[in-house]
Amino acid sequence: MLLAALREEVLHANQEIARLGLAPHTFGNASGIDRSGGEPLVVIKPSGVDYDRLTPADMVVTDLNGKIVDGALRPSSDLDTHTLLYREFPQIGGIVHTHSEFATAWAQACRPIPCLGTTHADYFHGPVPVTESLTADEVRDGYVRNTGAVIVRRFRQDGLDPLAVPGVLVAGHAPFAWGRNSAEAVEHADLLEFIARLAFRSVLLEASESGLPAHVLEHHYRRKHGPEATYGQR
Amino acid sequence: MLLAALREEVLHANQEIARLGLAPHTFGNASGIDRSGGEPLVVIKPSGVDYDRLTPADMVVTDLNGKIVDGALRPSSDLDTHTLLYREFPQIGGIVHTHSEFATAWAQACRPIPCLGTTHADYFHGPVPVTESLTADEVRDGYVRNTGAVIVRRFRQDGLDPLAVPGVLVAGHAPFAWGRNSAEAVEHADLLEFIARLAFRSVLLEASESGLPAHVLEHHYRRKHGPEATYGQR
Amino acid sequence: MLLAALREEVLHANQEIARLGLAPHTFGNASGIDRSGGEPLVVIKPSGVDYDRLTPADMVVTDLNGKIVDGALRPSSDLDTHTLLYREFPQIGGIVHTHSEFATAWAQACRPIPCLGTTHADYFHGPVPVTESLTADEVRDGYVRNTGAVIVRRFRQDGLDPLAVPGVLVAGHAPFAWGRNSAEAVEHADLLEFIARLAFRSVLLEASESGLPAHVLEHHYRRKHGPEATYGQR
Amino acid sequence: MLLAALREEVLHANQEIARLGLAPHTFGNASGIDRSGGEPLVVIKPSGVDYDRLTPADMVVTDLNGKIVDGALRPSSDLDTHTLLYREFPQIGGIVHTHSEFATAWAQACRPIPCLGTTHADYFHGPVPVTESLTADEVRDGYVRNTGAVIVRRFRQDGLDPLAVPGVLVAGHAPFAWGRNSAEAVEHADLLEFIARLAFRSVLLEASESGLPAHVLEHHYRRKHGPEATYGQR
Repeated sequence: MLLAALREEVLHANQEIARLGLAPHTFGNASGIDRSGGEPLVVIKPSGVDYDRLTPADMVVTDLNGKIVDGALRPSSDLDTHTLLYREFPQIGGIVHTHSEFATAWAQACRPIPCLGTTHADYFHGPVPVTESLTADEVRDGYVRNTGAVIVRRFRQDGLDPLAVPGVLVAGHAPFAWGRNSAEAVEHADLLEFIARLAFRSVLLEASESGLPAHVLEHHYRRKHGPEATYGQR
Repeated sequence: MLLAALREEVLHANQEIARLGLAPHTFGNASGIDRSGGEPLVVIKPSGVDYDRLTPADMVVTDLNGKIVDGALRPSSDLDTHTLLYREFPQIGGIVHTHSEFATAWAQACRPIPCLGTTHADYFHGPVPVTESLTADEVRDGYVRNTGAVIVRRFRQDGLDPLAVPGVLVAGHAPFAWGRNSAEAVEHADLLEFIARLAFRSVLLEASESGLPAHVLEHHYRRKHGPEATYGQR
Repeated sequence: MLLAALREEVLHANQEIARLGLAPHTFGNASGIDRSGGEPLVVIKPSGVDYDRLTPADMVVTDLNGKIVDGALRPSSDLDTHTLLYREFPQIGGIVHTHSEFATAWAQACRPIPCLGTTHADYFHGPVPVTESLTADEVRDGYVRNTGAVIVRRFRQDGLDPLAVPGVLVAGHAPFAWGRNSAEAVEHADLLEFIARLAFRSVLLEASESGLPAHVLEHHYRRKHGPEATYGQR
Repeated sequence: MLLAALREEVLHANQEIARLGLAPHTFGNASGIDRSGGEPLVVIKPSGVDYDRLTPADMVVTDLNGKIVDGALRPSSDLDTHTLLYREFPQIGGIVHTHSEFATAWAQACRPIPCLGTTHADYFHGPVPVTESLTADEVRDGYVRNTGAVIVRRFRQDGLDPLAVPGVLVAGHAPFAWGRNSAEAVEHADLLEFIARLAFRSVLLEASESGLPAHVLEHHYRRKHGPEATYGQR
């Protein structure tokens, strides 16, 4: 992929999370990665600049360790979370961090979002997991990088596939979502908010936490993913 | 009814559920049936096409068993639910499937919506029922058709008249609504969301599940339905 | 007051409750009364006509017993509630019936809205009362008129002044609000919805039902009502 | 600061709280103070005038005791709260009083907003405190001034720094927020509503009241405040 195209795509992803209401008060950021050449290149928005004034040239380009390769502005303060996730989850190509309201409410409650319905199952293969809180040491030794580390730990401990569960809640913070590229990451962040809102209301109506029967969950997930997918005009 | 008119009506119904916010993320579909000729003909939207790009010619026409009679696109993936309902409920002429947010929250909680108020009673003659979950066998043997089957089973078991209770919650999924034609189905889907939202809040305020006294429910329902209806400029 | 002016005022009140979102699905109506001449004349909207097509000439004029004096259309189906309230509460000059969502949720829960804050106290001198349910006899003998009767009974039993408590929740139904004229009735209906929404959330946060201390309630109510009012540019 | 500039700034702050939806029904007011000259001068909006008709010349100028220095209109009825806060909190330069809906719901529940997430910690160094109710004597002896007094008492008792905790909930009433100038006060009032909304939902999801671990709270607060702040393009 040409870097110029990736800059455009990442700019668009940042504008989309604002337009969709997922980044209230501009709390959010999106990135993408080009793994097609030799050294992978990460493109991310700059820190603290209004979404509507951003141009492709404002995007910051770094290597996989966050070293700036191109860009005059400081990168998003969450850069180290993004680069750690790109290093540990080689199958993903775009990451979106939002503070969408209902997903953030679940994150603040430190509760995973149970899979209560077929819309959830269409996009997430099981509950949306929640990380542990960072320890005092983790905060001190690299708060942003360790935000990525607690995400990865949750996925390793629970044996989760990042493409089957394309998002997470960071305890006491907010959600991250990802996908094969930044456009898909935006779509997953948007759906995550939708299912967080539905589940919030269902849980207040005393929905069983055991959630959707496993055979329904599997059916819906397979309907849109993998070789037997049947949805849409294909 | 001319098929051309039915195509227009069904297209309009699909556009309406989008415009009314009942089909977030385009999760929804509407159909209609022409029972005036010999073989009944079902008209339904195609699968996975944006609502705002649809034209009457995109609508898919099938027989009562879902065999395509006319149309170049694949029909909605929920077609088999629609056709089963048309076969089993001969009094209905239009069906709408939405993921409207509050009705879906009730469906995910697997709870019927109690009749707590006169607005509910004006449109639904008693609680909005919720189906059982599909069994593993039902999922495997025809998930979409059996979604219709669990709806019909609930109506048979509870002795419900589909025109007096013009909608249902599919457990762990979302609502279906219907009517004498697709326009009325849209109206019922819209009202179902309204009463789902009111009842959600009333239940959080600890409304009695016993709901509206039976004599008030009857009065309101009869005010708008049947030979003694008094509402409006008639 | 000239009847032509009252027609305009009542039309405007009906349009306002629609514009303010208090009459979703056009569930609502507003009326006014002219008590300046000999026989009081009630002006009310016709039944089942879209708000945006109404003209002053469409308004229906009746006497205090609901007998039509002028108007080609059928009056609102709630006319008998309005006329009973005008007969029993001679100090009021306008009535608004809405199905505003949070006030209706309280009505469906059959709970009075406790006075939890100063905004409530600025407009309602104590809790917003809720009626009893109509008995089967009351439904049969004149449902609409008896909806007014249960309102009046609540005010008599609790010794409430309709101008100090300018609204009520009809159990299992929805709110009515009133004022010295229909414009003030609209204002009270709008504020009632606002305080219903605030109180809903406060109660979920486990607000004490005992509510605002009496000395604060009195202070706020007197700040805007009566001889010692101090609010605004007067 | 030139008084003309302060008039403009305070007018803008009042318009902003309306535009941001923080002052429903025009329940709100903003003020600023010029401490650069000899006698500090307070600029505040007039009482009961629609936001959209206000001009800089309508702003009322008073001294620190609320004595009018310039202005033809009556000042906001909450003036005495503002002047008391300016006297007792010399580090603040702007105050905003709103009735934003979720913050008001917490105030009506007489509950402090626990610090459940990093967004909260970015702006408020700990829970958003709630005052005690005013006593009957305090209401009688100067309700508005004593509203300021119970705020100050809460900050003194809890040893809070008004710049580190730039807002408060007045029990049974609504929030006040402040900052180094009226623009910052608006920003804090807006964020206060955002965190009140998030915390409302998190608490309904049974978030632990103990909230965010102290080391995370400290990290986030220091990220945006004080000598080690790292956020944005600085």
